[in-house]
Amino acid sequence: MADEVVLLDFWPSPFGMRVRIALALKGIKYESKEENLGDKSSLLLKMNPVHKLIPVLIHNGKPISESLIMLQYIDEVWKDKSPLLPSDPYQRAHAMFWADFINVWGKKVCMTKGEEQVTAKKELIDCLKLMEGELGDKTYFGGENLGFVDVALLPFYRWFYTYETCGNFSIESECPTVVAWGKRCMEKESVSNSVPDQHKVYDFLLQMKKILGIE
Amino acid sequence: MADEVVLLDFWPSPFGMRVRIALALKGIKYESKEENLGDKSSLLLKMNPVHKLIPVLIHNGKPISESLIMLQYIDEVWKDKSPLLPSDPYQRAHAMFWADFINVWGKKVCMTKGEEQVTAKKELIDCLKLMEGELGDKTYFGGENLGFVDVALLPFYRWFYTYETCGNFSIESECPTVVAWGKRCMEKESVSNSVPDQHKVYDFLLQMKKILGIE
Repeated sequence: MADEVVLLDFWPSPFGMRVRIALALKGIKYESKEENLGDKSSLLLKMNPVHKLIPVLIHNGKPISESLIMLQYIDEVWKDKSPLLPSDPYQRAHAMFWADFINVWGKKVCMTKGEEQVTAKKELIDCLKLMEGELGDKTYFGGENLGFVDVALLPFYRWFYTYETCGNFSIESECPTVVAWGKRCMEKESVSNSVPDQHKVYDFLLQMKKILGIE
Repeated sequence: MADEVVLLDFWPSPFGMRVRIALALKGIKYESKEENLGDKSSLLLKMNPVHKLIPVLIHNGKPISESLIMLQYIDEVWKDKSPLLPSDPYQRAHAMFWADFINVWGKKVCMTKGEEQVTAKKELIDCLKLMEGELGDKTYFGGENLGFVDVALLPFYRWFYTYETCGNFSIESECPTVVAWGKRCMEKESVSNSVPDQHKVYDFLLQMKKILGIE
């Protein structure tokens, strides 16, 4: 039986992007179903009744949610191509730690002003500097190839332009290594084809702020 | 070489308890080092420089942190005894989802009063009812034996007496199935020997509230 793979998704979602990138790296064909988060589909509510959130991966009718759990599942089921996690338990735990560390750090930069925004920018930079320390002089977090941490962080790199524009600052001047890493990753078609244009992400954010009444 | 296993811990910590239970189920001998969280050891700061939090497992000199990542690591390294995660990828993802869902739900019950506490109690009960749905008529979340979700949830069961006393309510009357599950688990020595007495936990909470100036 051919695998039936469906992804319930929402295009600007960094968590959705994670799953898209992983599926692309593995060369898995899937049907993407774009959700309207203001009017969630009955399929989404049925497939993720606890959190009611995208992304949800439906593999042969069975749902998997939570992006990092989904990445691990994808890696375990389709293990022949592009392994994301190392096989050594310690190295696996190490990669999981850093993937788990990644968070929606930039959101506050976009949603605040004044002193609060200054603090949010500092927090974002501090966290990215820690990621730079972890990257070291490796090509990717996964070493010679994209791995679990790369896939986990890349969607947030795609939001950098939005963070920078909202915060009127340059991430590259503070964290050149992580920006160079992001550019390197974007040269891969499996990545660039899985994430939206950065200007489109910014436009989306502006619309969201309008709807939420945030200046 | 014999394994050298050290656990940096703090006895009332549910996250520390998770690791203690997993190590006990696997029959792994380890040295426990109790941390003074008001004056963290240089070992803790060195072993978990990012979060500076317990628990940290140090296995042959290498640190692993984040309790669920630690459980998975323990399960992968010591796979011969008491498997915690199923081998099937979908069932693994399913167990990880529920373990990840578990949170410090009861903390708010202890730290609030009035309307806020009423809401916190309702939230706790709602979450526990979802856990009851997942347990169904199984003996343990792991089926016939304790598994990943059991180990993740048990430490919070050990805090139930504290939640109930602070909130002046009965979890058992609302969620009898999960309380019966907890009692069943506590009959196992690997569990009961790994968690503190529930009155001691409550006394600890009272002391904390005093220090924090919360009535």
